[in-house]
Formats: sequence, C-alpha cells, structure tokens
Amino acid sequence: MTPIVGVIGGGQLARMMIPAALGLGIELRVLAEIDGSPAGLAATTVGDYRDAETVLAFADGVDVITFDHEHVPQEILRQLVESGVAVRPGPHALLLAQNKILMRERLSALGLPVPDWARVGSADDLAAFLADHGGRAVLKTATGGYDGKGVRVVTTAAGAADWLAAGIPLLVEELVEFRRELAQMVARRPSGDIVGWPVVESVQQHGVCTEVIAPAPASAGRLSAVASDIAHTIAAELDVTGVLAVELFETTDERLLVNELAMRPHNTGHWSIDGSTTSQFEQHLRAVLDLPLGATGCRDEWSVMVNVLGGPATGFLTDRYPAALADQPTVKLHAYGKDPRPGRKIGHATAGGDDLDEVVWRARSAAALLGSEAAD
Amino acid sequence: MTPIVGVIGGGQLARMMIPAALGLGIELRVLAEIDGSPAGLAATTVGDYRDAETVLAFADGVDVITFDHEHVPQEILRQLVESGVAVRPGPHALLLAQNKILMRERLSALGLPVPDWARVGSADDLAAFLADHGGRAVLKTATGGYDGKGVRVVTTAAGAADWLAAGIPLLVEELVEFRRELAQMVARRPSGDIVGWPVVESVQQHGVCTEVIAPAPASAGRLSAVASDIAHTIAAELDVTGVLAVELFETTDERLLVNELAMRPHNTGHWSIDGSTTSQFEQHLRAVLDLPLGATGCRDEWSVMVNVLGGPATGFLTDRYPAALADQPTVKLHAYGKDPRPGRKIGHATAGGDDLDEVVWRARSAAALLGSEAAD
Repeated sequence: MTPIVGVIGGGQLARMMIPAALGLGIELRVLAEIDGSPAGLAATTVGDYRDAETVLAFADGVDVITFDHEHVPQEILRQLVESGVAVRPGPHALLLAQNKILMRERLSALGLPVPDWARVGSADDLAAFLADHGGRAVLKTATGGYDGKGVRVVTTAAGAADWLAAGIPLLVEELVEFRRELAQMVARRPSGDIVGWPVVESVQQHGVCTEVIAPAPASAGRLSAVASDIAHTIAAELDVTGVLAVELFETTDERLLVNELAMRPHNTGHWSIDGSTTSQFEQHLRAVLDLPLGATGCRDEWSVMVNVLGGPATGFLTDRYPAALADQPTVKLHAYGKDPRPGRKIGHATAGGDDLDEVVWRARSAAALLGSEAAD
Repeated sequence: MTPIVGVIGGGQLARMMIPAALGLGIELRVLAEIDGSPAGLAATTVGDYRDAETVLAFADGVDVITFDHEHVPQEILRQLVESGVAVRPGPHALLLAQNKILMRERLSALGLPVPDWARVGSADDLAAFLADHGGRAVLKTATGGYDGKGVRVVTTAAGAADWLAAGIPLLVEELVEFRRELAQMVARRPSGDIVGWPVVESVQQHGVCTEVIAPAPASAGRLSAVASDIAHTIAAELDVTGVLAVELFETTDERLLVNELAMRPHNTGHWSIDGSTTSQFEQHLRAVLDLPLGATGCRDEWSVMVNVLGGPATGFLTDRYPAALADQPTVKLHAYGKDPRPGRKIGHATAGGDDLDEVVWRARSAAALLGSEAAD
C-alpha cells in the first residue's frame, strides 16, 4: 500500500514536496485553488479550501491531510478530524499559527520569550501601550497577515482607526530593537520525536524574506542551543506535527524573542533542499506520516538561499536561464512555475561552500540574473 | 515560454527526471508503455514507442524528444527528425547504443580500447574466435541485450546454435580478465560543451548493477584521466547529446576497455542525485535543451549507491520503510513506484561520507532492509 498524503494548497511548498514524495514512494494529492498551480504536477483537485464539502471530498481516501498554507478555517479542520481523517498539524496547533493573539497568549503562558504585547480592542488600548513603549509600536491583525501584510508601525492611537472600525481583532507589540532575524526549524512526528536543523539567519526586505544563511553566522554555542530549546518546547507543548518554523528576533541586548510561527515548510528552510541531508519537504512528509525522521546535518559549511523575485511577465526561463546557469554552474535553481510579477517569489537559488562571502555572492548573482529587484 | 521535454519511456529514469524538471521549471511529458508507470506523475501519454503515429503525435508541441531507454526503432527516430523535431541524442548516435556490432566497429575505427571481438555469422566464425582466445569467449546479441540478457559465455561453437538458427546478429568478444568494472559518465550539449563526473566503480551481480562507488577507489591520476578521455572522445566523435555512460573494464594488466555504451541517464550515475552538485537527471535535461551544464563536483568524499531489489509483492513501503528510515537516517532512499518482484530494481539507496567502509555499510544496510537478496 502506497501511503497517500493530501496537501491543501497548491503553491510552491506543495510543489517542492513532489520530489520528496517521489523519492519516498509516497502518493501526493493536492487541493489547489487554481488550475495550473505550481504543484499541478501532483494529482490535483481544483477547489476552494474554505468549502467544507470540497475539502472533505478531497480528504476521502488519503492517509493524512497536511498543508501548503495555514488558511483552512478551523470549522473545516474540525470536521475533517471528526470524520476520522488524520490532520497534521492538528486544528489545535494550527489555531496558534492562524491567530497571533492566541499564539502570544500561549507562548507567554509557557514562559517563552516574546516581545511585550497587548490586545488592542480600542484606541485607548493602543494609546496606553504606546505610552509605555516609547511612542512607537507594531500593530498587527490577529489573523490573515503574511509577508508584511497585516502589520504596520504606529506612533499614534489613530493608526489603528481603520482596522478597529472594521472590527478586525488586533494586537500590538513592542518595536523590538533587533540585531537580526533568525529562524529555527524543527520537525515533530506524532509519536513525539523532534529533529531540528541549525538556526539560520533570515534577511527581510519590505517584510519579505529575501535571503537565508544557514547556519546563522556566529550562532554556535548558546545562541543555537537557546533557539533549539525554544522550538523544541513549542513543537512539543503545542503538539505540532510536521515541520515548524519559529521566526526569532536576536535583540541588541542578546535575547531571542519569538516573532512568528509557521506550521509547514517555510521560506527559511528552502536551503535544506540542497544544503541538508534531509530537506524540510522530505522531513515534513516523514513527520506527518509518522515515519522515522531523517538526519539534518549540513552538507556544506555554509548554505545561502536567495529568493528570486519576478520579474518581467515573459521570458523568465528562455531568456534568463542560460545566462544564470552559465554564470553560476554550482548554484541550484528552483523554479516555482508561477507567472512572474514584480516582487512575487517565483523561485529561489541556493549556493553552498566554505567561504561565506563567496557563497553569498554566488547565490545573489544567480538570483539577480534570474529575477528582478525586490518590489519597493 | 516554458521549455517542454518529451521523454519516450516511463521507467525510473523518466521518473527521476521529474524533480530536476521541477527545479529548472521545465515541463516534462512522458510517453509510457503502461498506465501507472514510475514516471506517471508527469503529463503522461500511454502508448507504444514502436508505433510511428503514436510517437509523432506525442512529439507534437515538445521542444525536444529524449529517452528513458534506447529501444525506439531507427525508422521512427528518423521520421521524428524529418518532421522537424529535435531528437537528442540523435538517431545516428543512438544507433550505436542499439547495435553492439556497429558500436564495436565505430569504437575500433576511432582507435578506442575495446576487447578483441568479431562478428559471428556462423559456427565456424565462433570456433575460429574461440581457438584464438583460449577456448572461452563472450557471445552477445547485437541488439536487445540489457542487464545480462543477450549475453552468454561460450566454450564451444555449439553455444551459438540457437541464436544463429534464429537469425540473430551476433558478435563474440574476448573474456576480459578484469579487476573491476568502472563507468564514466559525461554530458554533452549540442553546442559542444562536455562535462564529466568522476569515474565510478560498478559492482555487478548476475549481470545486474547492484552497487556503485563514486569516485572509484584508487582512481585518481592516470585512471581517471584515461576514463575521462575515452568518454569525451566518444561523446564528441559520436555526436552524443545528453548524458552518456561508458561502461569500462579495468583489466588485470592495467588497461581500460570499453564494454558498453548507454546514451541516457544510467544506473551507475544514480549516486549523483545526492552525491554531486548536478545530478545526471538535471544535467541530461540541461544538455538536451542546450542549456549551460552544471558543475559536477562531489558533495561527499565517497558516495555509495546500492540498488534495492524486490522483494515481496506487498508491503514494500508500509512494512519496510520505518525500519530502514529509523536504522539509517542519513541514507537517501529513492523509490521507483514499481511493484516489487524478486530481483527487480525497485529503488536505490545512497549514502555519503568520509569513511568508505562505513559509507558502504550504511548504504547496504538501508537497501537490505528495504529489499530482498539479488535474484539467483
């Protein structure tokens, strides 16, 4: 019997599960929003993940349901579980990746380091938080944010007016003075085993991850141990199954604070396809099927992943590939099968080697030849 | 415009092109013999590659046609070319991978080292060859042999009687006293660039490749230079496009002799998926599309690939995977999506590292847990 994994969402994360599924001999089925999705090669159903009937029909016959994104409504997730489908990660865990207020409450209750934060139910709430935090803070919608959306820096209580008027649940967080952003990924299987990758440094531009260095420079010792402990604790305490990405701030006063959680393969783990013995995509499939997890050692001293951002609307491959391939024969390119649009992630490039400066240069060169500048 | 590669044949070689095609953003279409082929995930047409109409219809709209096997009849290959389709490798090159008599003639004409050989049109031809070569020789059918089929050791002229009676074109070769078998793979693009991997050692049992060590132990220096020269010469002189595998004998008197040629990804190159910067599958796609070739450095000091041979007819994955994955977390498994049958190649396992004995042990352990013993 070939295990069957159903993936809700047909984006690049589902696409990059395909090679891992082929290697493991697993059947992958994808519920995609559109025809011709990046993951269209897998057995694909086109349908709306917000429609319970569609999702339940898709789940019929699969061994486990997992996700390319975290947007499936809780009500549908619960119906899946009630109908006897294995959902990994489960609704109770996903809820905390879907709702930043619940996530902050839970992490705070666990004693994990998070930025100062508060719910914002009124302009007064925000005014009070601003008064306590130097007059600047980060306002976030509890749900629906990603890649810098649903996030704004505010300096006055008026900054929340439109979202409050729309009745959107909000939280506010201190504007963390951070030296850099890190990410710690781990995978956990239902039987409990947890395996992590090295903590990585993630470079963001305009709220979008553009570059990842693995492992994070100068992270040996305490920094990597603390990051690992945090992620292990979250995975175990929140009962996460599959891979978990913990985005972290390394503050200027030497603390690590949890920024965001993602309970699926994550942009900060793409380097692992070429740079780790087991990629995050293979590990996610192993984990959600409760198979033994793979080794996560680094294949190179340094791996650097640079996102390829589109880009002119035409000629991505035919025009740009030969130059990039010729210029950087050691760099591994990963196309997402998406129409290029300015600022859209349409692929990534990974380089590896012993000399970090040189590895960064190779990865950036390939990505620059393939894509366009980041959106402004 | 997304480049489209049409692959004739839907076996594991086509299957393993899928991850490379996804990474490069190439569309892969496969003409498979059966429904549910190993490469069934790609856009698949089921049809007979010996039927010209089927093949020509399949080729309509692709940018290039290439192959999972070498069995497409020359007449159909020529029709493809005449209809304006790019066929890589071309019919003139493939002919020499299809017919061992023509291959031996051509390699001999090029002055390349081959075993002593002769055409066998009669029992007398064979008797004469046996008399000149110590009474033992290897009789081969000119076409259709693979994995030990179409090959037999003969000691008397009567050994050819059935094949001669059937009118099968035959050749006879000296029984080479070899220390070991090697394989040298290179890739060549139509514009002429040739890139090779290190020469590897290939272990055969019952005519089937069971294990590959990359690079071949004690191959640095002259041995690797000679192997590389031979493969470069063959690729260039025979105008091979795509990857070329040259199977070699390393004789007990320190010579390298060309045994067989394959003009497609080859079992002796599977290690490159995990062990080389560019896998043979990615390189084949780059080469047939005339894209710049990738770097072929080794990712580990030693890579060892062991074929997984089926095996009981049921329970391959569900029963055996957990044990193999748990026992060997560093080994990369590659399932072919084939029903296990005793002696059938149903996957392979690759290990990498610094200590060859230990690497061999890990790869063999994983393969042993997954498969059965070689067929006797």
